[in-house]
Amino acid sequence: MTSHTVYRTFETEERREFIRLGDDVQAAVDEAGIREGLALVSAMHITAGVWINDDEPGILEDTLEWLDKLAPPSWREPANDVAAALGPDPGDFRHHRGGEDNGDAHWKNLLVNHQAIVPVTEGRLDLGPWQQIFYCEFDGGREKRLVIKVIGE
Amino acid sequence: MTSHTVYRTFETEERREFIRLGDDVQAAVDEAGIREGLALVSAMHITAGVWINDDEPGILEDTLEWLDKLAPPSWREPANDVAAALGPDPGDFRHHRGGEDNGDAHWKNLLVNHQAIVPVTEGRLDLGPWQQIFYCEFDGGREKRLVIKVIGE
Amino acid sequence: MTSHTVYRTFETEERREFIRLGDDVQAAVDEAGIREGLALVSAMHITAGVWINDDEPGILEDTLEWLDKLAPPSWREPANDVAAALGPDPGDFRHHRGGEDNGDAHWKNLLVNHQAIVPVTEGRLDLGPWQQIFYCEFDGGREKRLVIKVIGE
Repeated sequence: MTSHTVYRTFETEERREFIRLGDDVQAAVDEAGIREGLALVSAMHITAGVWINDDEPGILEDTLEWLDKLAPPSWREPANDVAAALGPDPGDFRHHRGGEDNGDAHWKNLLVNHQAIVPVTEGRLDLGPWQQIFYCEFDGGREKRLVIKVIGE
Repeated sequence: MTSHTVYRTFETEERREFIRLGDDVQAAVDEAGIREGLALVSAMHITAGVWINDDEPGILEDTLEWLDKLAPPSWREPANDVAAALGPDPGDFRHHRGGEDNGDAHWKNLLVNHQAIVPVTEGRLDLGPWQQIFYCEFDGGREKRLVIKVIGE
Repeated sequence: MTSHTVYRTFETEERREFIRLGDDVQAAVDEAGIREGLALVSAMHITAGVWINDDEPGILEDTLEWLDKLAPPSWREPANDVAAALGPDPGDFRHHRGGEDNGDAHWKNLLVNHQAIVPVTEGRLDLGPWQQIFYCEFDGGREKRLVIKVIGE
């Protein structure tokens, strides 16, 4: 059995952003030199996801809007000057009492999962024609890491 | 390390349908001849899921209804003749502007995950007594593929 | 390739409860004696989850409340004496017609997933600084099992 580990660091400009990972994962498989095995792609943070879905801008935008319905964002604008003076609205999140404002990003991470595992067959990622791997940033603007772990032979 | 890869093709009659996979996955493990390892079961499409849950008709029907609440379907009947004349209702899905009507199936795929990984111990799938593996079709009526990848020794 | 299998049994006092698993999974890796590989952590029940998220009491409490919104609980108190005499309210769950009352726990299992896979690098779980592995009980008060399967070398 051979293994190979690659780390990627992202610092997105937007708070939420999708980054294609297919080429990086294939490169990790090539570097490992394996023909048959598994490639695990896993965010090392609790406010980012990894998913395999369509590389179509419409569905990506739809999905972000939908995730905001299921797991509502929390960086609300203060409703007026008094509210602004009181500081950030902690909303319903107990998690925000310590000053955090990313509770929704935790929930999005749980909903879409923070990892995917890709079969490797004859040296290639064994994906369907419309399957693209994405890193899904839900609380960006700072350095965040991802690990790709390839095992096989 | 040994590996073994099996592909399954499904063409369901219904748009949404559940197919038991336990026997297929065990067969793949038997063919691989491994005693200890992992079996990855992964849909090769972005509009189908794989889950491990109860093989009880009531909960399967409940769950489909519930998924339609969290990820509403998009093949709505036109409300009247004028709407029918305008063609399929694109609803809120940007994804449907290109003629697709399966946005909800993408979301169901993300919610329930498109893959599961089953431990193999002493040559058997190491599942609890009520755990059954299902392929969950959310946009059927055409040929769709699934990969089972077994690694171990 | 080496493999090692560990079972854990939980019988929580509360119906819903979170249990930290990081130390158990690291112990399984140590016992396996591997340096590089994967550790699968998988609930053997269809009414429990395994997730990797923040070990912060506020977000755990928030998340349980949020999951109850997405997947509403079903152990409703009877509204009055007549209802009580009729027995447990089966609600909308077809699954409850046979006497079960844990339909929501099945859904929570599907939403948050029943398993996670942790990369192992240089003998350690390769997680980010805020990632903790949790067993998430959604229907406790009885013996339930979990399997940790380590493979690598």
